[in-house]
Amino acid sequence: MADNSNQSDSLPVIGITMGDPAGIGPEVIVSALCRPQLRRSARFVIYGLNEILTYAADMIEADPYWSRVQHDSERAQRSITDNVVVLDYDEFDGMLTTRPGPSKKGGLSSKRFVEDAIADALRPDDSPRHIDALVTGPISKHSWHIAGFKWPGHTELLAHRTRAKRHVMMFTSPRLRVALATTHEPIVRLRDALTIGSVYDAIELGHEACLMLGIKRPRIAVTGLNPHAGEQGAFGDEETRIIEPALEMARNNEINCTGPFPGDTIFIDAVAGRYDLVVAMYHDQGLIPIKLLGWENAVNWTLGLPIIRTSPDHGTAFNIAGKGQANEQSMIAAIELAIKLTRHKPE
Amino acid sequence: MADNSNQSDSLPVIGITMGDPAGIGPEVIVSALCRPQLRRSARFVIYGLNEILTYAADMIEADPYWSRVQHDSERAQRSITDNVVVLDYDEFDGMLTTRPGPSKKGGLSSKRFVEDAIADALRPDDSPRHIDALVTGPISKHSWHIAGFKWPGHTELLAHRTRAKRHVMMFTSPRLRVALATTHEPIVRLRDALTIGSVYDAIELGHEACLMLGIKRPRIAVTGLNPHAGEQGAFGDEETRIIEPALEMARNNEINCTGPFPGDTIFIDAVAGRYDLVVAMYHDQGLIPIKLLGWENAVNWTLGLPIIRTSPDHGTAFNIAGKGQANEQSMIAAIELAIKLTRHKPE
Repeated sequence: MADNSNQSDSLPVIGITMGDPAGIGPEVIVSALCRPQLRRSARFVIYGLNEILTYAADMIEADPYWSRVQHDSERAQRSITDNVVVLDYDEFDGMLTTRPGPSKKGGLSSKRFVEDAIADALRPDDSPRHIDALVTGPISKHSWHIAGFKWPGHTELLAHRTRAKRHVMMFTSPRLRVALATTHEPIVRLRDALTIGSVYDAIELGHEACLMLGIKRPRIAVTGLNPHAGEQGAFGDEETRIIEPALEMARNNEINCTGPFPGDTIFIDAVAGRYDLVVAMYHDQGLIPIKLLGWENAVNWTLGLPIIRTSPDHGTAFNIAGKGQANEQSMIAAIELAIKLTRHKPE
Repeated sequence: MADNSNQSDSLPVIGITMGDPAGIGPEVIVSALCRPQLRRSARFVIYGLNEILTYAADMIEADPYWSRVQHDSERAQRSITDNVVVLDYDEFDGMLTTRPGPSKKGGLSSKRFVEDAIADALRPDDSPRHIDALVTGPISKHSWHIAGFKWPGHTELLAHRTRAKRHVMMFTSPRLRVALATTHEPIVRLRDALTIGSVYDAIELGHEACLMLGIKRPRIAVTGLNPHAGEQGAFGDEETRIIEPALEMARNNEINCTGPFPGDTIFIDAVAGRYDLVVAMYHDQGLIPIKLLGWENAVNWTLGLPIIRTSPDHGTAFNIAGKGQANEQSMIAAIELAIKLTRHKPE
């Protein structure tokens, strides 16, 4: 194989799952890897459907730049040294004519891509199928539901399969980094879901994540849960009962963190450069500012796993899928971060 | 009195409360009304401390441009026709030497300013003390608490004193308008506080507010409560149980509203101009985007009252008070909106 040089062998191997075949995952992956500079910095294994990826390449008038290997073929069990390989699951073919939207086949296939990629990420480093990091394309939770899968999202599935004791959802973007103390909890269930431990984990794993990004002494701001961070107990007591003890624990472990701060103003300070990371208490509190400041450059990074996992900060976007309108910036950022993190692998 | 011309008589009278004397309220009021164009568009009655306002004028090197009238003097009961009058409460004097921060005197005085201003706003139009609109400077809830007042904020006090059956907190800024279905509720109490009625009121009053601003057929987006707007029931059921019925009621009343949309992405669409108003379910969900896009130009507007009330979108900012660093833009915007609304008074 032409690319089987020493240099190529020393490059990290990044696994990319295609996500829901009817979403924008295929086209943003194909567009992202069109960049020669990105392709030179790693080797890539795409878990997906060659048929759909080829169509996406056609759409953007790019020649397919990858080798196709049937996922369950004998060749797929051997070391793959091509620069970009598509592990093809052609038993799920036939979705090209499907109207973009949630479907059972979309759920079955996208779940399969992820399961196989996780298994490969967990293989020993010297295994021919080992991947050094995983970048996941957007799945449709609705498709997963139709296919009978109950996982709230990638993050929870990854935590379970990798037997992670704890996991935290983090988002990085050029202007703001956010780690979440809870992930996909219904708002009224925050009463039970928000604990000293969940807040502490987000602070500690967020702190470690900043160190991995090369930030020497990360400055961490922690939000309150309630309006005005509880306004001295007038609008709720989670600040004193849960968040302050978590901050105290973190400070005892030499982590530079302050708060709880009102959620509606702390992001202004963070964007102004006064903090390296904001730990937010729940999904919308952290995601509203990340997305408003430009989801195109934001990356979702799962902390606490024994493997590296990033993903773009957008969904399947069925409404624009297959039209050549999707923006590949977030996928590029997710791949670049995954490559960067392979140089600082978790213990 | 020199300004007692016909033109001056036809101008609206705007009451402005100074807020906590130790906060930035005094200086942003004095700076805002330095603008001749603003002073030409209305007459102003400031409820506050002449001593502090004079000091603020000194600080920005402006000559005091107002007349002082003792609030409980005989003259204060007659029609005041000067362009800017300070109704002085000198029984609270002596705070100039106070270190900026919450205090009992700050609570007692700032509460008194608001109570008197509300009373004046509720007087008949032909009363000499009637004001056409009320702009409130920032109070410290901590000061109010020390002084023994339990109100969560201006909004709730105003609703009670004016016997408003319903009230909604709205924020306007050049790039985004937001109305809140709940105001200062602790997050875990949203279980009880978020009702079909509270969501409906925010939609309907927000719709009327947009009409008052001159928007012909307001396009209203409504957020979900939960992550991903509940993701088809996977992350909570308030979307189907509460928000969708409220949307249905509003549509039956010919209001152009859609949703529930995920809280983390809908503000992107609103900022892009696809909606005139976002109805958010709770404080931080609506306030994070408003403040991140520039609180300097945002105004807090209380809907549903029988009087017009606006305020700047910032607090007492004790940490910068008295240093000449405060930004008066939000106060100017609050005054300008109040003046504009006197031309569209609520029924």
